[in-house]
Amino acid sequence: MADPSLAELGEWELIRRLGRFAAPGQFDDDAALLPAGGPGALVLNTDVLVEGIHFSEATTTPFDVGWRAAAANLSDLAAMGCRSALGLTVGLVAPAATPWSWVEGAYEGLSAALQAYGGQLLGGDCSGGAQRLLAITAIGRLEGEAGAIRRGDGLPGDRLVCTGAHGLSRLGLALLRHEAGLDPNALDADLVRQAIQAHQRPRPRFDAVRALQACRPAGLPWRVAGCDSSDGLAAAVAAIAAASGCSARLDPAALPLEPAMAPLPAAQAWCLGGGEDFELVLALAPAWADALVAALPGSRAIGGLVNGGGGSLCWSGGEAIASGGYSHFGTSGR
Amino acid sequence: MADPSLAELGEWELIRRLGRFAAPGQFDDDAALLPAGGPGALVLNTDVLVEGIHFSEATTTPFDVGWRAAAANLSDLAAMGCRSALGLTVGLVAPAATPWSWVEGAYEGLSAALQAYGGQLLGGDCSGGAQRLLAITAIGRLEGEAGAIRRGDGLPGDRLVCTGAHGLSRLGLALLRHEAGLDPNALDADLVRQAIQAHQRPRPRFDAVRALQACRPAGLPWRVAGCDSSDGLAAAVAAIAAASGCSARLDPAALPLEPAMAPLPAAQAWCLGGGEDFELVLALAPAWADALVAALPGSRAIGGLVNGGGGSLCWSGGEAIASGGYSHFGTSGR
Repeated sequence: MADPSLAELGEWELIRRLGRFAAPGQFDDDAALLPAGGPGALVLNTDVLVEGIHFSEATTTPFDVGWRAAAANLSDLAAMGCRSALGLTVGLVAPAATPWSWVEGAYEGLSAALQAYGGQLLGGDCSGGAQRLLAITAIGRLEGEAGAIRRGDGLPGDRLVCTGAHGLSRLGLALLRHEAGLDPNALDADLVRQAIQAHQRPRPRFDAVRALQACRPAGLPWRVAGCDSSDGLAAAVAAIAAASGCSARLDPAALPLEPAMAPLPAAQAWCLGGGEDFELVLALAPAWADALVAALPGSRAIGGLVNGGGGSLCWSGGEAIASGGYSHFGTSGR
Repeated sequence: MADPSLAELGEWELIRRLGRFAAPGQFDDDAALLPAGGPGALVLNTDVLVEGIHFSEATTTPFDVGWRAAAANLSDLAAMGCRSALGLTVGLVAPAATPWSWVEGAYEGLSAALQAYGGQLLGGDCSGGAQRLLAITAIGRLEGEAGAIRRGDGLPGDRLVCTGAHGLSRLGLALLRHEAGLDPNALDADLVRQAIQAHQRPRPRFDAVRALQACRPAGLPWRVAGCDSSDGLAAAVAAIAAASGCSARLDPAALPLEPAMAPLPAAQAWCLGGGEDFELVLALAPAWADALVAALPGSRAIGGLVNGGGGSLCWSGGEAIASGGYSHFGTSGR
């Protein structure tokens, strides 16, 4: 194809092609590290959230659109090693007929997330357009002795740790959408509440970065590979493995499932590929991994990195795992 | 109206209402100054450019869309007192059927502007959506002894200086659109080239900020009010006057018109309200203003600030000037 459409190209090939316009490495991580990295370096992250793709009026109130937009963006700062945010800017696009109450609700959600997790609204821009859309850019700074968390810093022998349960957000979405085959009345009421909360009010894991920094064993240098699990747990693990030139093994007995969710037929698929859990997935030296699991409630060792294999993802027994993932151009580019 | 639409609200009332979500002052300037201002402070600016509103395939090649997006954003950094940019992030939204060549062209234009004016592409995000759109966030830093340039720092007695001719970009747009009543063959060929260049390849005036810093008379403190003229010269002057609690007087004999453009019937209207010239409009102490006009070719003293009047804009003879301006929600909100 001499001039393929974006749908024909697929999202990952598009990102690969755009990489040549940026400084080396800038498209490889959750966020951009400003030239002159290291402690005190600035981290910048842009996300666009488009109505009909990232949110819909049916499942998301304006408040939740704003909260999720802010939280998803701050999550990328946490995934780079920031333990707080300086703030964010908002580009708002909306059709002229959009009611003010929708915009107000979205900004109230943004503000509430900033109040909960830190950072200021630093202005932005607004324009008319064919559909509602938020473009958020968050800025943070690496603090203390911490370096960055980058996808490609993993080594064979590293343990994989995730900071919380996975699949809850996808279950929450299924409940909000009234998906067929899922009877809310057959589910534990606490699980229903927890799943909807996970979907509507994700939280950036700055607390996990603080715990990670605090529990580093004496003598171990700063070296942590990682990203957030916004695109799904399996995709996060595969991304770390690929960027680190390793392969990943997941322990089927250590799948980070909320116990009450385990009996659901889709539990494993949603845990691995549901996405939007916004936990951190990290690869680090076993001693540090053990210290983190001991220090951070809800975190869990789920497997490890092994030599070679170019980013493949298997169960510890050897069977391959599909890493799934979601394309924002309507095709599977992965 | 209990819940007006954005069109009913108008752009400026929308921005006023959104101001309550931000730190005080963050919505008053061209860009956001990160908490802890002063020399070395970070400046962050977000602009969204939407197809059909900010650009169209008829008048703008993909290269020019990218160039203009970067240049307009860097211009806001210059308008805050930055003399260079660290870089920018790009949120790209486009329908799945968009050809890769359009995206490639837009990024080539972005890159060319960054190569010409400094700064790196710092990553970003992409998504499908109903129409093409770029959301750009640029980051810069105040350097040297310079403070910020803010709209509200003007004082009565300040001289108004603009850094170049106005109206050329609007003439360029009229030529590209083949607007009725404008015969390109009746125009000077150099003027046609210059006007189209002004529209397609605006330049951020970092050089003017450097000249401003270099020519500050000894003993004068840093105090410069200003903004860029992206929304039009009259709107820029009115914004400075209003934010500074002053009124502005423009000298009709000093209108910053390109001489070859002066005979056109629309010349004065386009000079005052055409917009998108991306020059800087500054209000500063007369001695500094004179030094700047002497140091910066193309700059010109165009009037001054006077006491009281709540932002009104008059000719030096006293007749009012309409400040015009453009609403991005399809109504005149100003």
